[in-house]
Amino acid sequence: MMASTTVVEASVADDHDHEACRALGQILDRIGDKWTVMVVGALSRGPLRFNALMRTIGGVSHRMLTLTLRALERDGLVTRTAYLTIPPKVEYELTPLGRSLIEPLRVLSGWAIENRPAIESSRAAFDMAGEPG
Amino acid sequence: MMASTTVVEASVADDHDHEACRALGQILDRIGDKWTVMVVGALSRGPLRFNALMRTIGGVSHRMLTLTLRALERDGLVTRTAYLTIPPKVEYELTPLGRSLIEPLRVLSGWAIENRPAIESSRAAFDMAGEPG
Repeated sequence: MMASTTVVEASVADDHDHEACRALGQILDRIGDKWTVMVVGALSRGPLRFNALMRTIGGVSHRMLTLTLRALERDGLVTRTAYLTIPPKVEYELTPLGRSLIEPLRVLSGWAIENRPAIESSRAAFDMAGEPG
Repeated sequence: MMASTTVVEASVADDHDHEACRALGQILDRIGDKWTVMVVGALSRGPLRFNALMRTIGGVSHRMLTLTLRALERDGLVTRTAYLTIPPKVEYELTPLGRSLIEPLRVLSGWAIENRPAIESSRAAFDMAGEPG
């Protein structure tokens, strides 16, 4: 299922195709975005309404969640379904393409959780070394 | 090796710790950044000098590569070694922590390469549907 080349390998193998490389970089920026990671994680157990998503993802603003959901919908990773009930109900759900992103993002966020202490120690040491004596 | 929780699960399980959640989001933004993905990919085969990195990663500016390498050094993912030769030589190399990030980023960029056509079709359809008739 998984392509065996990295973005860099693709760009080296195919360096006439700068358009493709830019497009890949742009997709990476979208899927590596922290709010994307959190929305895909929150929807990985099933569809949710907007307010439930806001509660599940601590610290996201109404505006940022709206923008993130719209970008995910545009990319074909999330569907937005409006039910004509009173009051109206809108649900967000991962598409099959969106579900295929769960595992790569789980691996990435697992790495971040596991290595946060090491990264924070390294930053503290780096900043200390850079301070004027 | 890999933590079994996602960022979202961690934030739900541990929702008093907003500080930890913010820190994780910030690390995700760093490691999901497209230039980080490309630099880690380029260094995955061994150390490189700045100019060789620039050539390997098409389309990165001098300034952006400098900023990315400095952030990676601060995070403890890359070492910068200056050799006192004439002319001076500076090499960048992944640390063991940086090497542990190769595989998660390879999976992520593999997903992006594989699914770029589907994402681009979805965007075209979405933008078409949004145009005034």
